Amino acid sequence: MTDLLWPGDHHAGEIFTDTAVLDAMLRVEAAWSTALVSAGIAPPDAQVTVESLRPLIGAADLEAIAIEAESGGNPVIPMVRRLRDGLGSGTAASWLHRGLTSQDVVDCALMLCARAGVGVIANELDAQVQTLSTLAGDHRGSSMVARTLTQHAVPMTFGLKAAQWLHGVVDARELLARLVFPAQIGGAAGTSAAAAELSGTGGDPGAALEAATVVAGLLGLTPAAPWHSVRTAVARCGDATLGCTDAWGHIANDVLILSRPEIGELAEGSGGSSSTMPHKANPVLSVLIRRSALSAPALGATLHLSAADAVDERTPGAWHVEWDALRTLVRRTVIAARQTSRLLAELRVDAARMRDNLEAAGTAVTSEQDSMATIAGHEPASGYLGATDSFIDAQLARAARGGGDEREGN
Amino acid sequence: MTDLLWPGDHHAGEIFTDTAVLDAMLRVEAAWSTALVSAGIAPPDAQVTVESLRPLIGAADLEAIAIEAESGGNPVIPMVRRLRDGLGSGTAASWLHRGLTSQDVVDCALMLCARAGVGVIANELDAQVQTLSTLAGDHRGSSMVARTLTQHAVPMTFGLKAAQWLHGVVDARELLARLVFPAQIGGAAGTSAAAAELSGTGGDPGAALEAATVVAGLLGLTPAAPWHSVRTAVARCGDATLGCTDAWGHIANDVLILSRPEIGELAEGSGGSSSTMPHKANPVLSVLIRRSALSAPALGATLHLSAADAVDERTPGAWHVEWDALRTLVRRTVIAARQTSRLLAELRVDAARMRDNLEAAGTAVTSEQDSMATIAGHEPASGYLGATDSFIDAQLARAARGGGDEREGN
Amino acid sequence: MTDLLWPGDHHAGEIFTDTAVLDAMLRVEAAWSTALVSAGIAPPDAQVTVESLRPLIGAADLEAIAIEAESGGNPVIPMVRRLRDGLGSGTAASWLHRGLTSQDVVDCALMLCARAGVGVIANELDAQVQTLSTLAGDHRGSSMVARTLTQHAVPMTFGLKAAQWLHGVVDARELLARLVFPAQIGGAAGTSAAAAELSGTGGDPGAALEAATVVAGLLGLTPAAPWHSVRTAVARCGDATLGCTDAWGHIANDVLILSRPEIGELAEGSGGSSSTMPHKANPVLSVLIRRSALSAPALGATLHLSAADAVDERTPGAWHVEWDALRTLVRRTVIAARQTSRLLAELRVDAARMRDNLEAAGTAVTSEQDSMATIAGHEPASGYLGATDSFIDAQLARAARGGGDEREGN
Amino acid sequence: MTDLLWPGDHHAGEIFTDTAVLDAMLRVEAAWSTALVSAGIAPPDAQVTVESLRPLIGAADLEAIAIEAESGGNPVIPMVRRLRDGLGSGTAASWLHRGLTSQDVVDCALMLCARAGVGVIANELDAQVQTLSTLAGDHRGSSMVARTLTQHAVPMTFGLKAAQWLHGVVDARELLARLVFPAQIGGAAGTSAAAAELSGTGGDPGAALEAATVVAGLLGLTPAAPWHSVRTAVARCGDATLGCTDAWGHIANDVLILSRPEIGELAEGSGGSSSTMPHKANPVLSVLIRRSALSAPALGATLHLSAADAVDERTPGAWHVEWDALRTLVRRTVIAARQTSRLLAELRVDAARMRDNLEAAGTAVTSEQDSMATIAGHEPASGYLGATDSFIDAQLARAARGGGDEREGN
Repeated sequence: MTDLLWPGDHHAGEIFTDTAVLDAMLRVEAAWSTALVSAGIAPPDAQVTVESLRPLIGAADLEAIAIEAESGGNPVIPMVRRLRDGLGSGTAASWLHRGLTSQDVVDCALMLCARAGVGVIANELDAQVQTLSTLAGDHRGSSMVARTLTQHAVPMTFGLKAAQWLHGVVDARELLARLVFPAQIGGAAGTSAAAAELSGTGGDPGAALEAATVVAGLLGLTPAAPWHSVRTAVARCGDATLGCTDAWGHIANDVLILSRPEIGELAEGSGGSSSTMPHKANPVLSVLIRRSALSAPALGATLHLSAADAVDERTPGAWHVEWDALRTLVRRTVIAARQTSRLLAELRVDAARMRDNLEAAGTAVTSEQDSMATIAGHEPASGYLGATDSFIDAQLARAARGGGDEREGN
Repeated sequence: MTDLLWPGDHHAGEIFTDTAVLDAMLRVEAAWSTALVSAGIAPPDAQVTVESLRPLIGAADLEAIAIEAESGGNPVIPMVRRLRDGLGSGTAASWLHRGLTSQDVVDCALMLCARAGVGVIANELDAQVQTLSTLAGDHRGSSMVARTLTQHAVPMTFGLKAAQWLHGVVDARELLARLVFPAQIGGAAGTSAAAAELSGTGGDPGAALEAATVVAGLLGLTPAAPWHSVRTAVARCGDATLGCTDAWGHIANDVLILSRPEIGELAEGSGGSSSTMPHKANPVLSVLIRRSALSAPALGATLHLSAADAVDERTPGAWHVEWDALRTLVRRTVIAARQTSRLLAELRVDAARMRDNLEAAGTAVTSEQDSMATIAGHEPASGYLGATDSFIDAQLARAARGGGDEREGN
Repeated sequence: MTDLLWPGDHHAGEIFTDTAVLDAMLRVEAAWSTALVSAGIAPPDAQVTVESLRPLIGAADLEAIAIEAESGGNPVIPMVRRLRDGLGSGTAASWLHRGLTSQDVVDCALMLCARAGVGVIANELDAQVQTLSTLAGDHRGSSMVARTLTQHAVPMTFGLKAAQWLHGVVDARELLARLVFPAQIGGAAGTSAAAAELSGTGGDPGAALEAATVVAGLLGLTPAAPWHSVRTAVARCGDATLGCTDAWGHIANDVLILSRPEIGELAEGSGGSSSTMPHKANPVLSVLIRRSALSAPALGATLHLSAADAVDERTPGAWHVEWDALRTLVRRTVIAARQTSRLLAELRVDAARMRDNLEAAGTAVTSEQDSMATIAGHEPASGYLGATDSFIDAQLARAARGGGDEREGN
Repeated sequence: MTDLLWPGDHHAGEIFTDTAVLDAMLRVEAAWSTALVSAGIAPPDAQVTVESLRPLIGAADLEAIAIEAESGGNPVIPMVRRLRDGLGSGTAASWLHRGLTSQDVVDCALMLCARAGVGVIANELDAQVQTLSTLAGDHRGSSMVARTLTQHAVPMTFGLKAAQWLHGVVDARELLARLVFPAQIGGAAGTSAAAAELSGTGGDPGAALEAATVVAGLLGLTPAAPWHSVRTAVARCGDATLGCTDAWGHIANDVLILSRPEIGELAEGSGGSSSTMPHKANPVLSVLIRRSALSAPALGATLHLSAADAVDERTPGAWHVEWDALRTLVRRTVIAARQTSRLLAELRVDAARMRDNLEAAGTAVTSEQDSMATIAGHEPASGYLGATDSFIDAQLARAARGGGDEREGN
């Protein structure tokens, strides 16, 4: 899967593709059959494995399922029909999917695919923390002019700028680490009535609840009460990906400004070429990262709108709008994660140019110090970097601690 | 191309797929070569046809181009490289793409793909106008209870409800009809300097301007001055698609409410099935149309954000974010268009149930009339439908007129 | 009314304030009483004037009405109660508001307030067209370097940049000029049944329709069939204001970049000061205009969401969310309009710095020309501005024509 | 402060009003003066108290400050000027605000105002948890029909529905509890250079860092390294408020559906009246809560966009757009909090109607059970509520535990 209109899309590979979603749904059906048997609800020969299900759905079936999904509004119905046909007339076919509802399968698959993407993103964040920690430490002495509202302000160092980028990246890592991916097992209306009925215990839900716990364990999801109309897990997943693109957008924006030829303090390792101007070296990674950062908030809002529009025991429309929004957010965040890691790893820092620009700024960057010295009644100190190094230390320490819940680092 | 997570995606067929975008870009390059020759800038053997270019890009190339697009930030550079390689060392290869910039090719391709989608949508709107006009006329006598803020209000007819739906659909048709799809031909920075230089006229831009007019004509786009950083055309295209989903969302919402079993006044022609409950007939088309209506505003906002973030002669990031947002909006609007046409064509209206519900509402729907009659000092009239028929007539007349710029219809 | 957290808010003055909305609602009630009498529905002494109504609602009442609005969900009910109390026990009190519903009054008031804001914006756009036309003409000879994806591209002139800004401003003017502000007169459920009943004509709606036409004329709104659940007018108003902020955002972004000290080609007439750095001259107007441009798309999306969520004959929640979103959009657009007019009027253009930067760019901006000349087999021309002047001419001509529906200007 | 176009606005009282923001800024300036003295940077007579500052800014000054805020882009500059003027020519005037930048003052004030709002919201959530826990427990035996995609599905109880509402409310409480409100003390560019210079320690930042810690303590904010361009705290605050309106939107939507006259299972304690239909009892609180839930996602997206647009050491425009977006989100969430608490406290549950509707649904709600019993090879059990009670227990237990980070509750 590639996307001609989203350069870099290949970095997301098979994460959350149609194929990955289908496979996740097969894993859910297989795990559920195991859970039904394990809980004593279904007979042993009801159990199927994902390996036995996969061959029943060919590549052409995927497209057919996508088309047939319209008639019931989701892809589970045509998928289950094919699986039962493929399993023949025996016990396994008869028991497949029993006790589940379409939303159970889709929601579990969404969580599995999201978790896979989040795992990749977390690894990239770890790498970025390393790179930024190094940059922050290495450039404690690289003086540059700080800019506020586009204008020269006072001196700072590039080490502090890297530490500020690190600040945001550790924030993102922290939010990602808090994510929970709950299993969704509730049956038609979140009562697990079908599974309880199947267990033949006269209404005692013990076996049904046990099956739900087993399936969560098999899938590596967090056991949870049904959340068909309580979409916290999805909305938070979106918020966490936005935390990432917020942090990376900041980095990309700084690179875009500081690599302008008139400023020239930073440069991408290998700039992008132009179709007509051979000399150009565009900051393409930054361009593409900024693109992701601009697109993400609207998608996150869509997930919250979906959560806020919940009604009844399954929501018409708002549930359906989540699927692709979550997929798109996760894939694009994976892509931007990899682009940011590379941007940082290859970033070229021109400390001499930073110093030159600072010197050229002249009195624009020393006037505040003069004012302060006058007020305090002494001569200006020899530098004007204040607590710059302390703030670098604080971010480095926080990054090294693993970014617990505290965000301060003072 | 299908999308497992957007049921109904197949209705958009090849509109704005990667393949369609690539083909549109090939059409732009071919048309430009023709224009260069036509304007006397390039020699006759510089001309290539789209038929000669298509074989130079195979299916595997499409994926490779998508991957390589990352290095320059857009797919034009790897595409042109392949085309030149395929054309060999002659004049055609040498002249291909000369005078254009990547943005010219991408923007023209976006406009071509958007126009194709808008054409389909417009046809569906026309069909909906017919269906709704018939519904409005046929159900002048189908009394029902009007509902405001979820509660029973006063009597109305289903004919008026259909006329209100028609009102929105004609509004959408009007907005779509106003759309302009401008050609984008400006070269590296919107000065057409390269084309002028190529024309060898010592800086006279006459031939370059002529070529721009020719290429617009060949592509069926509106001739236009360069708009690299003035994104009105894209933002308005988004706004017009939102006008459509706004109108269809209204229809779907009404069907979702009125097909609830306790109300039962409307039903989809063939409801969707359930994976576990054999009796259910879900209003699936309405569910999926509502889904589209909920997702569209955020994408439209992304297009406006992109327009508002324009800077310099080509915008870093905001330009790039437009591509997929426009594609997604157009495809989803095509899908929702077809789903709405079918929803309306197959809609089942239970006039008897409408009448029963109205009667069951009792004094809740007659108390206003009694108050009014008391104030005016006369007995209540025999009905309480006011100008219902006049308002139906107004919408029917407006629809029949073709939906000019006036929106009133009184 | 001022807003400490939206600097510049005072530029919107009384447009769409609570006081203005209340006064607009009073105008609607007064005009309707006139219309009822004019159409022969109410007796002559039922007529009230806005001048007679205003004294009945004091400043303290405004706050009380706002508080009491919660119980019915809108401010009309407590307002009408106060007016009737103030009018005493006579005919005028008895007839006040008869035939209307709260939504009629609120929607008409929204249209009146929006139209007032749009009028101010249109005037500012006209002024900007003048300023930009002058800038574009005056700076035909001010060469500067064009920048694409932040990097130097080829030469252009500041006249062309001003013409591109003009391009967007004329687009915005065009969209604003298309806006229609329809009257909303439909009664409880958009059937005008109450007005018809009041007319005592046994159900003939003629007088009721006449009254609706009269009230539209009195208020200066466009006569229209009821649109309680068809929110096109509101959504389009939002889209048009976004068209404005899109155009101004582009201008502000360019000023923010080009007034960076390392570039220095533009400067605001009087930059903003700093609380701690006496030397700074921040491009504050651009900062505040960009702020508006960033905030507007989300509000526009809210209006479309509201339109798409329409249901029944009055929508629960989505209708209510429109009110403040429309007010905020209109006020902020008025503010940004005035800030942009001033920004442009006072803009300082440093043509010498532009020329210096272009020269410093060196071969970066001439390499494309060399490539083109080589391909075409001649020496490079003496300049490389291509159709720059033609494109300026095109925008000037379009601006002078008044910006009809055509957007090209080629 | 009231808002005619946002009924219920008075519930937010003085939270985050202009007056509250100004007072928060005065508290920051006073606390900073104390911190400067405490850290030995300023002489003792530099200290001012908020009580001494308040009289220096009158009501008329607030409006003047709002107007003058435009020239520097924020209200701190005109406020500080007035305060210095008011303090006269002594030490206090000379030292006021020294070492701070405008952004320090605004950001600290935003955090103080947000925290005040969040405190109110948290209290309301606690009350809702109580009410919902009672509802869930009391209605374990209130059978009703579950509805999925608008259609009848299987039986459930209203106790489970209340437990699902509780699920969302506890999620919201959890997210709110995680919020951190960091102090912002960094000076012109986040280096604390001015404070260090003032301390006269030759560049040693120890005293400056001590002052920052002291001021955080005085204000009750979390000590933090400067975050001028790292906007996590603001974006997360927005996300947490969205978590609230998501949960309440779900509740309101259910009430809006279930209080439709044809369903009649729920009713608001005291419905809203109509301006023309005396019989109506509209579910006004639900309408207004839904309104808030629909408006919040777009504002949350604005905060993320702002975070993602960060650049340099102070961001032009994106920083400024946060202020009112955060204020509006917080106030509206407070309002919706109070409306939801009241909605729940007064909610009327018609268990008999629920039972009637369930019975009327007939075989539509028993067919799944029959299928399951057939598959399992036994007679259907006497009920079909599965794990309904277990799921209620799980939510009650989680609510009672205080809603730790786990979200499951299985």
